[in-house]
Amino acid sequence: MPQLTYEKEITGLIVIDPYNDFISEGGKVWDRIKGIAEGNQCVAHMEQALTAARKAGIRAFYAMHRRYRPGDYETWKYIAPIQKAAWSGKAFAYGTWGGEIRGEFAPQPGDVVTSEHWGSSGFANTDLDLQLKKHGIEKVIVMGLIAHTCVEATVRYAAELGYEVTVVKDATASYSDDHMHAALDVNIPNYASAVVTADEIASALSSLTETPVSVQR
Amino acid sequence: MPQLTYEKEITGLIVIDPYNDFISEGGKVWDRIKGIAEGNQCVAHMEQALTAARKAGIRAFYAMHRRYRPGDYETWKYIAPIQKAAWSGKAFAYGTWGGEIRGEFAPQPGDVVTSEHWGSSGFANTDLDLQLKKHGIEKVIVMGLIAHTCVEATVRYAAELGYEVTVVKDATASYSDDHMHAALDVNIPNYASAVVTADEIASALSSLTETPVSVQR
Amino acid sequence: MPQLTYEKEITGLIVIDPYNDFISEGGKVWDRIKGIAEGNQCVAHMEQALTAARKAGIRAFYAMHRRYRPGDYETWKYIAPIQKAAWSGKAFAYGTWGGEIRGEFAPQPGDVVTSEHWGSSGFANTDLDLQLKKHGIEKVIVMGLIAHTCVEATVRYAAELGYEVTVVKDATASYSDDHMHAALDVNIPNYASAVVTADEIASALSSLTETPVSVQR
Amino acid sequence: MPQLTYEKEITGLIVIDPYNDFISEGGKVWDRIKGIAEGNQCVAHMEQALTAARKAGIRAFYAMHRRYRPGDYETWKYIAPIQKAAWSGKAFAYGTWGGEIRGEFAPQPGDVVTSEHWGSSGFANTDLDLQLKKHGIEKVIVMGLIAHTCVEATVRYAAELGYEVTVVKDATASYSDDHMHAALDVNIPNYASAVVTADEIASALSSLTETPVSVQR
Repeated sequence: MPQLTYEKEITGLIVIDPYNDFISEGGKVWDRIKGIAEGNQCVAHMEQALTAARKAGIRAFYAMHRRYRPGDYETWKYIAPIQKAAWSGKAFAYGTWGGEIRGEFAPQPGDVVTSEHWGSSGFANTDLDLQLKKHGIEKVIVMGLIAHTCVEATVRYAAELGYEVTVVKDATASYSDDHMHAALDVNIPNYASAVVTADEIASALSSLTETPVSVQR
Repeated sequence: MPQLTYEKEITGLIVIDPYNDFISEGGKVWDRIKGIAEGNQCVAHMEQALTAARKAGIRAFYAMHRRYRPGDYETWKYIAPIQKAAWSGKAFAYGTWGGEIRGEFAPQPGDVVTSEHWGSSGFANTDLDLQLKKHGIEKVIVMGLIAHTCVEATVRYAAELGYEVTVVKDATASYSDDHMHAALDVNIPNYASAVVTADEIASALSSLTETPVSVQR
Repeated sequence: MPQLTYEKEITGLIVIDPYNDFISEGGKVWDRIKGIAEGNQCVAHMEQALTAARKAGIRAFYAMHRRYRPGDYETWKYIAPIQKAAWSGKAFAYGTWGGEIRGEFAPQPGDVVTSEHWGSSGFANTDLDLQLKKHGIEKVIVMGLIAHTCVEATVRYAAELGYEVTVVKDATASYSDDHMHAALDVNIPNYASAVVTADEIASALSSLTETPVSVQR
Repeated sequence: MPQLTYEKEITGLIVIDPYNDFISEGGKVWDRIKGIAEGNQCVAHMEQALTAARKAGIRAFYAMHRRYRPGDYETWKYIAPIQKAAWSGKAFAYGTWGGEIRGEFAPQPGDVVTSEHWGSSGFANTDLDLQLKKHGIEKVIVMGLIAHTCVEATVRYAAELGYEVTVVKDATASYSDDHMHAALDVNIPNYASAVVTADEIASALSSLTETPVSVQR
C-alpha cells in the first residue's frame, strides 16, 4: 500500500453513526457488537482519531443514520432488509438517549452534521458530498459503525464519487470476526487507499503542521 | 400539449417551500413576490391543488429549503449567489415563524417531508428522489415557490431523473412578470409535459377514485 | 426470506459485466474466477436467468465497466485501488476481444446498454438509474461479475436508490469461497430482498405471461 | 459581482455540446440560433476562451449530449418535451457530421470527454462530476450551447453540487434575445458567481503561469 499524505485543507474526517444505541452500554445494538468493539477498543480508538483530527485542524463530518420517528417506513412500497431491521428495532429513536451521539463525540463548533441517511451509505440521499465539496475536501478518513454496513457503504460511495479514502480499522466494529473480515479484508481494500490503525492515523496527523505529512502502513 | 392522465398509485404532488417567509403577510420575502402572488392568487391556487390531490389520494411530498441555523455557510469555501442571499437574509430561520410552513399547508399524516435542500432543487442532496421511489411515484405535479429558482430547478431535476412532470402555473409566483415568463414560458415547457392551471389540475384529479392516501397506522 | 413476486412491467434484469475478460476461457481475469465459476456453473446459470427473463418479457439492462482506452487514469489525481488494478491490467480493453460481451449474452433489440462505470457500481456516474426509471422499473434482478465488487456495489446502490433487489447467487462468481461468502452471505442479504438460485428465478419468471419485451420498431 | 480568481490546479473549463448540428453552417439547429450566435460571435468567443484555457493550463471537460442512435427513446415510458424534440430531429445523429464536434473544438490529449447526457445537464447521469473530482477541480468555467437549456442546466447542477461557477456570456447562444435574457439575466446570476465576456476570461486566465495541462503520456 502506497505512502499516503494528508493535507489539512483538503482532508476531512467522516464519523459514522456514533449513536449511543451502537456504542454505549445499554444501547440497542451494543450487545451485538460489544465483543468486537471491546476487543479492538473501538470507542477509545474513535476518540483517539477524532482528537488527533481536531488537533491537526482536520474538520469532522458526521454521517448520521435516520433517527426513527413514528410513521417511518409505514407507507413505503419497498423496504430493504436492513431498513426492516431498523424499523422493527426502532434504532436511534428520535428524542431518546439511544438516538443521541455518545458524549465524547459531541459535535463541536465548525463540525458538520450532515442530513440523515435511510440506508447505509452516508452519501446516499444526503448532503455529505455537497458539504465535503463546499469545504474543499478531496480526501476522507473514515471511522465509526458498523464496519460491514454503513462504514463499508460509505467507503464504497466515497471512492465512486472520486474521493481518496483512508479507513481506521480499529475504530470500527461489527457483529463478529467474520463480519469484520468481510468488510476490512475482503472488500474495503479495493476502495480505500489506506487501511490503518488509530495509532497510525494519530501519528500521521500529529505531525501535520503547516506542511503535509505521510503515513505508511 | 398532450392530455395528461394521472394514476393515483404512481403520481405525487411536490409542494415546494410553503414557508411563511415566502407566502404570508409579514414574511421576509413576501413583499418581493406579493405583486405576482396576489395577481394570480398563488396561495389560493396552491391550496386548491393540494386539496384536490388529497381528495384524489395523491400523496404530498414537501420539498423544503434549509432553514437558516447559526453557523450555516460560515465555513464554506464556495457559496453560490443565491446561497449568499439566503445567508444574508437568514431566510426561513429555524425556530422562527418565517421558517414554519403556512398553516393551510401543514403536512398531514401520510405526507412526506423530505430533507432540506441547500440550493434550489428539491432533489439535490436530499431524499426526495428516494422517497418518490419508495412510494412507487413516476409522475409528479409541482407547485410552490419561487417559480424561477426552486420550482424551475426542481422541475429540471425531476425531468433529468426520469419523472414525468406537470407544473401548476398559477400556484407559483416570483418577483416580476419577467421572472415568471423566464420560468414558465421559456424554460419549464422543455421539461414539464404539462403546464396547467389549478382549475385544470383539480378537474383532472377529481376523476380519480376518491380514496384517502394509504397510511398504514 | 419472503416469497417475492415479479410483475413484468416494473421488473428489470441487470446484467453486470459479461465481458470475455471475465467469463470466457482466455479472458484476462478468467483464471482468477474459474474455480468458483466452474464450480457453480456461473455462465450457464447467467444464460438460464437471461433466457427466462427474455421469455417472461423482462427487459435486460446491461451495466458495463469502462473498457480501457489509452489515456485512461493517467491524469487522475486520485485512483482507487480497484481502478489501479483495472488500469494496470488494461481490463476490457476497448476494441479487443476481452472487452466484448461474451456471445451468449449479446444484447438484443429492446435491451438497454447503459453508459460505462469507472468503479464498481453500475449506478455510479452512469445512466442506469435513469434508464430504469424511463422504463418504469421498480424491482431489479441482479447477476453477473464479480460478486464482491461490481455485483455487491450495484446491489447496495440499487437498495439505496429505492429499488427492490433480487440476487441470483449462482449466476455470479468471485476469486474464492471467502470472497463469495463476504458478498453473498455477509453483505448482500442486508440489501437484497431475495437471494435465489437461477432455477428459482427461472421458475418464478415462468409464471409471467410470455409476451416479448415491447420494442416499438 | 466580485473579482474572481482562477487557480490552475482547481479550475476546469466545461465545453458544452460543440456539435456541428449546433454551431456549424448546415447543422440541424444552426438556423435557429444563427441570429444570436452571429450577433455575439459565439463561435469565435468559444474558441477564444478555449485557447486561453489551454494556454493557462486549464483542462477542458467536454459535456456532450447523447448522439441519436436508432432505437433511442422508443421503449421509454416517459419522454420529456426536450427529449421528444431531440428524438424527432435526430439531433447529433451518431456517425453523421452533425454529431461530430466542430473542428476548432476537437478534444486534445489531456482533455476529458465525459459520457453523454440524455437531458440538458452535463452532470445528470454522466461521469462529469466524477471526472472533475478525479482532477481536483473545484471551480468551473462554462460555455457552449444552448444558453437556456444545456448551459443553464449545467450551471444549476454545478452550483447544487458545490462548484464555483463562471459563465462566459458571449460564448453561448440561443433562439432569441428573450431566451438569452431568461438564461443569462434572470436565472444564471443566481448560480454563477461570475458572468463574464470571453475577453474578460481570456484576460483573467492569461495571468496564470503558462504551463500546459499535465498529460502523462
